[in-house]
Amino acid sequence: MRISVILAHPSAESFNAAIAAAAVSALKRNGHRVCFHDLYRERFDPVLPAREIPKGSRLPALIGKHCAEIVRADGLVLVHPNWWGEPPAILKGWVDRVLRAGVAYDFPDGPEGAAGLPIKLLKIKTALVLNTSDTAAARERRVLGDPLQRLWTNTLRYCGVRSVRRTMYRIIVTSTLRQRAAWLADTRARVSALFPPDKKSR
Amino acid sequence: MRISVILAHPSAESFNAAIAAAAVSALKRNGHRVCFHDLYRERFDPVLPAREIPKGSRLPALIGKHCAEIVRADGLVLVHPNWWGEPPAILKGWVDRVLRAGVAYDFPDGPEGAAGLPIKLLKIKTALVLNTSDTAAARERRVLGDPLQRLWTNTLRYCGVRSVRRTMYRIIVTSTLRQRAAWLADTRARVSALFPPDKKSR
Repeated sequence: MRISVILAHPSAESFNAAIAAAAVSALKRNGHRVCFHDLYRERFDPVLPAREIPKGSRLPALIGKHCAEIVRADGLVLVHPNWWGEPPAILKGWVDRVLRAGVAYDFPDGPEGAAGLPIKLLKIKTALVLNTSDTAAARERRVLGDPLQRLWTNTLRYCGVRSVRRTMYRIIVTSTLRQRAAWLADTRARVSALFPPDKKSR
Repeated sequence: MRISVILAHPSAESFNAAIAAAAVSALKRNGHRVCFHDLYRERFDPVLPAREIPKGSRLPALIGKHCAEIVRADGLVLVHPNWWGEPPAILKGWVDRVLRAGVAYDFPDGPEGAAGLPIKLLKIKTALVLNTSDTAAARERRVLGDPLQRLWTNTLRYCGVRSVRRTMYRIIVTSTLRQRAAWLADTRARVSALFPPDKKSR
């Protein structure tokens, strides 16, 4: 299968980067074709300009590449820290610019308000969202309500992704090396279970 | 009072820009000092770099200016379209870079996971979030669950804002000029009611 892995963290030495690397290696070991994007490293510009909003508008090369990849992907892995119950801006902008009308979804005629529900264009069946957090689970549930679950489920289902799985690793800031190693093993196991080796590619 | 108005929309001719202008003019008419930022026009960079994450790190001039303004603000008006249940990336990045530890909140000692609840640093009492949407209200409630309400309430209360009001204007794409004029009048009325003339400044 073709699996896109998208990482959004400012530091190349972050635990998020280690999670993404663990996901990529597990996918490759299972024989998948991986499109890996470290959005910070590739200096992805998350600011959607007005000229890109109309469907079918001419896209910069990097955005066009992201769009082509997500259309062809069979699976998706997103890795990011929880910043204010949302992804970092660089990943929010990846959503704004890449999951665009005519690429990730479409309308039968006219906009949703006028014409009803969107047509889902992505063929991705399963997405896995891997998050890190420094907020305790009880406080997250009681006070904050875990907005990330809703945001990713809404966004990806809108585009046709059927199954959105999510795992939150916490608390990062006080974690031990041993705990981190266990989390990375968990990442490899989850990725491998969701994206097992293709029968035909073996 | 000092009121910050933050606009996030790619087009200077957008209805969001008209809403922001209506808010600014109502605030000025009431005698308030307005700090207005059109994030797209000022080419705000929403990508938080690793070197800015530590508390007390040296900030670029524009970020420092935003931080100084939000610390001194008595009120806040945010204007943005609903993109995927979240603000546009440029405004998410304003949150990531401006509402920072040591400016908008702090911890007694160490991070939240270790040391408990944040200290709220902003003196803003009231924030008003003005949104536009092309999704019908019933579908928003039933399918999407209005994540914006939770995101802004969580984020701003975390920093000490006591009252977070929000209004959603919809459906923009099929609206008439007359409807839009009524919405702008609604904006002026809401802004004026939340931020009436200061007694001492009259």
